[in-house]
Amino acid sequence: MHAMNISLMAAVAMAATSLPTLADYVVKEVGSFHVGGRTAALSGMPTRDVVFSPGAPAIKVDPNGEFAVEQMYVQCVKLAQPKAKVPILFWHGGGLTGVTWETKPDGRPGWQHFFLEAGYDVYVSDAVERGRASWARYPEIFKSEPMFRTRKEAWELFRIGPSYEIGGARVAFEGQQFPIEAFDQFAKQGVPRWVTNDAATQTAYDALVDKVCPCILVVHSQGGNFGFNAALTAPDKIKALVAIEPSGAPDPTKVDIGKLKGVPHLIVWGDLRDKVAVWQRLPIAPIKFGEAIVAAGGKADVFDLPVMGIKGNTHMLMMDRNSDEVARLIHDWILKQGLVN
Amino acid sequence: MHAMNISLMAAVAMAATSLPTLADYVVKEVGSFHVGGRTAALSGMPTRDVVFSPGAPAIKVDPNGEFAVEQMYVQCVKLAQPKAKVPILFWHGGGLTGVTWETKPDGRPGWQHFFLEAGYDVYVSDAVERGRASWARYPEIFKSEPMFRTRKEAWELFRIGPSYEIGGARVAFEGQQFPIEAFDQFAKQGVPRWVTNDAATQTAYDALVDKVCPCILVVHSQGGNFGFNAALTAPDKIKALVAIEPSGAPDPTKVDIGKLKGVPHLIVWGDLRDKVAVWQRLPIAPIKFGEAIVAAGGKADVFDLPVMGIKGNTHMLMMDRNSDEVARLIHDWILKQGLVN
Repeated sequence: MHAMNISLMAAVAMAATSLPTLADYVVKEVGSFHVGGRTAALSGMPTRDVVFSPGAPAIKVDPNGEFAVEQMYVQCVKLAQPKAKVPILFWHGGGLTGVTWETKPDGRPGWQHFFLEAGYDVYVSDAVERGRASWARYPEIFKSEPMFRTRKEAWELFRIGPSYEIGGARVAFEGQQFPIEAFDQFAKQGVPRWVTNDAATQTAYDALVDKVCPCILVVHSQGGNFGFNAALTAPDKIKALVAIEPSGAPDPTKVDIGKLKGVPHLIVWGDLRDKVAVWQRLPIAPIKFGEAIVAAGGKADVFDLPVMGIKGNTHMLMMDRNSDEVARLIHDWILKQGLVN
Repeated sequence: MHAMNISLMAAVAMAATSLPTLADYVVKEVGSFHVGGRTAALSGMPTRDVVFSPGAPAIKVDPNGEFAVEQMYVQCVKLAQPKAKVPILFWHGGGLTGVTWETKPDGRPGWQHFFLEAGYDVYVSDAVERGRASWARYPEIFKSEPMFRTRKEAWELFRIGPSYEIGGARVAFEGQQFPIEAFDQFAKQGVPRWVTNDAATQTAYDALVDKVCPCILVVHSQGGNFGFNAALTAPDKIKALVAIEPSGAPDPTKVDIGKLKGVPHLIVWGDLRDKVAVWQRLPIAPIKFGEAIVAAGGKADVFDLPVMGIKGNTHMLMMDRNSDEVARLIHDWILKQGLVN
């Protein structure tokens, strides 16, 4: 019996040293996949002479053939023992990729990490045309030219500051929360965007919901509209929808808004919206959409952060200095929806 | 004492249920960052009228400004208790991204997962111009047009089979190991490529090595040449280099090959190379490079898989049906270099 005790105690001690610390988590799988998309075929285009290595003879390249287009990329981290009853999906905004949710530009862990630690299985995706989703030849397959966001546009549109001069002064808003010393690092996360891929993107998002949900959606900016539409298409599969500064929403008079009665919504707004003209206009449709959900008997809570005393948040509030404070508010709201054990 | 036994046994039982299974691993961090790159500025280009939403009035878009270009994207998964003494870095081939190393197209866990389970901290990157690294306007910043790989080219160049007809028959080589039922899924992983970004790509890879190594490099195809050059630049930081079907290598008479004396190399070749003309030519430079390392007193082992009795491997051997058998051989070789505790 004494020997038994010692071996038991040894087992406990061993178990203790190999147990994760509070900050670690036990992962079942880090995985990825592409979802959605279609086959596009090109024919009749001329061959092109391409020099692959400087000095080497040109090789004829035939651009005709079949291509995989309009798929999206999804990466998941699944926990051995998730506490959340359903996974959480993070959808990025325009001109960006899933990197939005990963490590912040200043090196602090991102919301992907925050929600893993909080016990959620986390899916982070790159929408059609961006990042690991890939993109297709234009104008033959994608129907317009891509646009490249300048640093100045990011600085001003994302409400970091009122002015950005090329090679010169960057003026930030007083009290704003973006870690501006990491702004150039953030700019590396930008990807080109098209204005003609919305339908394909929605189709791919709907395919993702169909594949991995029931789930919680957290959507940002341009992702807001895709999220609202995905919930209208599959309301039984979206257990909660958190829209971070959505830049658009469907017209509630043109959709069956009653379908969203059972989908709790939370819309989160940062600060400094009165400082940038476009931010007077962009929230109008999402606010109207949320009000229509409530009028239809559903739930659409609003966290207007400065009204709640949380000041200085930019459009990229998942990267702001106080971003984990905001993440905690969202996690608490999800807890109240009964979605975490 | 009886009560003590019970509480000990309860503790053991509790510890047992919260311990990872053999297939799980305890993660300290899932993180990402961009490394390298430079600022490019465009000026004097005309504004463009862009319709952002169908039916809406056009908005003037000014394409001039500063852009972050030529950075690369890196994702790391760090273990709470790695067994490997240094992390392992996976570099993909041309027209592909880090997805190469993630979940295989047929849904089985990829080499990223294999090496995490084996106890390595794993870094998977997207080189300049691809995936989450983003790409830049051409011909103003990138100096040529992108190329889009057709499914036919992937099927034939990667030695899956001798012929691929658009909308028709796909003939596979007898005994080949690629899961052809997942070929269309694999095609979704392809991204456009440029032939004029090699110098920028090498610079970014060198910056990555400088940031995160000492390390083990595992490079594939086009990544081979970048890996050999990175080792020549920082031989003290590369503790082993595994080149999977490298498609090129520096001319050993034009570099200081003696610098690689202390860097153990392993070159791995799949099967079916005699079936595809270009595969008579591509291995010539890497084979010569490996021989020069050995002649200089270094180590450059070769795994010619069919000679070792492992048949049917394609160019995408990390996705083949027997890919984990190959991963195990590589892991065993790394063990022999004394790099795993």
